[in-house]
Amino acid sequence: MKLPFTTLEWIGPATTGHLRLIDQTKLPNESTYIDCKTVQEVWDAIKRLSVRGAPAIGIAAAYGCVIGAQQSLAAFEQNADHLATSRPTAVNLFWAIDQMKKVEPRTPENLLAHAVQIHNDDRDMCNAIGNHGFKIIEQLAATANASTDPSNHSGIGILTHCNAGALATGGIGTATAPMYVAHQHDLKFNVFADETRPLLQGSRLTAYELAAAGIDVTIICDDMAAQVMRENRISMIITGADRIAANGDAANKIGTYNLAVLANYHNIPFYIAAPSSTFDMNIPDGSHIPIEQRGSDEITQGFGSRTAPPDELGAKTYCPAFDVTPAELITAIITERGLINPVTPAQVLATLNNLRFTPPA
Amino acid sequence: MKLPFTTLEWIGPATTGHLRLIDQTKLPNESTYIDCKTVQEVWDAIKRLSVRGAPAIGIAAAYGCVIGAQQSLAAFEQNADHLATSRPTAVNLFWAIDQMKKVEPRTPENLLAHAVQIHNDDRDMCNAIGNHGFKIIEQLAATANASTDPSNHSGIGILTHCNAGALATGGIGTATAPMYVAHQHDLKFNVFADETRPLLQGSRLTAYELAAAGIDVTIICDDMAAQVMRENRISMIITGADRIAANGDAANKIGTYNLAVLANYHNIPFYIAAPSSTFDMNIPDGSHIPIEQRGSDEITQGFGSRTAPPDELGAKTYCPAFDVTPAELITAIITERGLINPVTPAQVLATLNNLRFTPPA
Repeated sequence: MKLPFTTLEWIGPATTGHLRLIDQTKLPNESTYIDCKTVQEVWDAIKRLSVRGAPAIGIAAAYGCVIGAQQSLAAFEQNADHLATSRPTAVNLFWAIDQMKKVEPRTPENLLAHAVQIHNDDRDMCNAIGNHGFKIIEQLAATANASTDPSNHSGIGILTHCNAGALATGGIGTATAPMYVAHQHDLKFNVFADETRPLLQGSRLTAYELAAAGIDVTIICDDMAAQVMRENRISMIITGADRIAANGDAANKIGTYNLAVLANYHNIPFYIAAPSSTFDMNIPDGSHIPIEQRGSDEITQGFGSRTAPPDELGAKTYCPAFDVTPAELITAIITERGLINPVTPAQVLATLNNLRFTPPA
Repeated sequence: MKLPFTTLEWIGPATTGHLRLIDQTKLPNESTYIDCKTVQEVWDAIKRLSVRGAPAIGIAAAYGCVIGAQQSLAAFEQNADHLATSRPTAVNLFWAIDQMKKVEPRTPENLLAHAVQIHNDDRDMCNAIGNHGFKIIEQLAATANASTDPSNHSGIGILTHCNAGALATGGIGTATAPMYVAHQHDLKFNVFADETRPLLQGSRLTAYELAAAGIDVTIICDDMAAQVMRENRISMIITGADRIAANGDAANKIGTYNLAVLANYHNIPFYIAAPSSTFDMNIPDGSHIPIEQRGSDEITQGFGSRTAPPDELGAKTYCPAFDVTPAELITAIITERGLINPVTPAQVLATLNNLRFTPPA
């Protein structure tokens, strides 16, 4: 589907064209675009988070390699290696650059064709997740319409956390993909977006992209989710994932596990939407996923002005960036090849060969 | 116990003295005090939230009545009625002013004596809650010391939400009272303070007052509470309450119910600390407590800069100010006369006569 904004795209021919991307540091207040015409401009855009989200970063770096070949075929490898230093732990970034290095013969045309292929594959993956997830929403809508419970609020309510959206990918996102597909099918539903402290990706990015696409979206503070569930406003929860263990335990933005526990208590289905490339079959369960700790500034002055006591008073902060939702709290994992349901070690193992993402050769 | 800040106090003799209070609009960055020497200055301080928290507002208004009598005995009733308009729904405010109107003969000396009595009663109530709650912490500490579980983090961790603290009362607070008493007894524990979106009373006020008192306090974002519980860092949860129904259902700041559900899942005891005056025996259960809705600004631009899409994009907000925690999720209610435990309609009914708060005559 055509979104009213473009996360990133290639403009012009292979030999003289450039990468254009929406400046996510200016969202949600300004929708401005950046034209990256040098490798350094792509590097800067990734570094300062003008483009973010693992798939989107990988695609940006792939296009950056095309620009590198425009600048100098002799310095291609050097430029590509420089791009890889823009974010330290972005697996998709390294993967995309490795793919681009393998392109033969190394011409701007061939490189652009391959970057477009990486972009298209990501778009296809998003669409496939969207189509599988849409069926779940469609089924819930059918049930809701049949229900005579007066406490049912305006049909289907979908809660999401953080931004696993179009702004993070080359397509319609992962957690948001079923919403975009449902919207395209004129299905009536509304989305609740957790604002997602500390970095507020929910209110800044998810609310922006859904509202811009004409989807009914309501921002809530993270501590309101339980009350919204209690008021029967939520029919399902969908979030993305950063890394999923072999048993289905899923690491995602801090606050995801919170929602999974709440969903369990309120008997609301809880879904993870993620491509098969998110699975790390080398780790048996979530206890092997390290939880990154972030700096205190995100808590003490996340909104610009300081909102915590001065340092000399000695109040501390604790700021885990991720949490791990145990498989038993996940109703199903929506992948590009279909659902993992139930989420058990056996089910993940049994379907792995089908699900394993094969990077383009 | 002596706190390193003073929420509010009377300075000087009855005929020429005045009310001094810490300016909570400047916290946590500046600890500055306001001297209120006219009724209008007291009214302004309440109106702009320089003093907040139901008990503290009532005490401020009582002292304001003394100032009213200094200004003009003839205009005493008029000044008192004016003070009552400073906050529209503050029950303690109206109650304290009614009490002050009944003082006979109406001299500054008699009025000050009565205002001090209201203040002292509130301080006693806080101390009583603190002593009862301390016994719970003491018992948990004994259990923790006996435990050999290596995942036990540094003894007792207490999680709280919003600010039911010394800054909201004339004494050591309600939810914070057991912490201050435990600190006075040199018991080792640490507090996790939810920042408490949207108004951040947890990071701005609770973290301030506990850190200022030398208590080990750590600020977390609201969506981190589940992860902190999963990491075995929380031994108990204590929050305040705004209104409690006859069956023990408790309305408190939005996000409290969230914590109660998480506590239930993680087998962590969940306590409400509140004076018996918080009970509204006219309502059988929490479904009769209306949930106030707040304006969207608190979500979209809570602290200076805007963090949500521009209005023209059409993203909505939903901002309930309170939620209701059902009695079955509350381990016990800590009141000034002891614990309600278990929290059942029968237990609340049976103990009501003992618990009913008798305002000073």
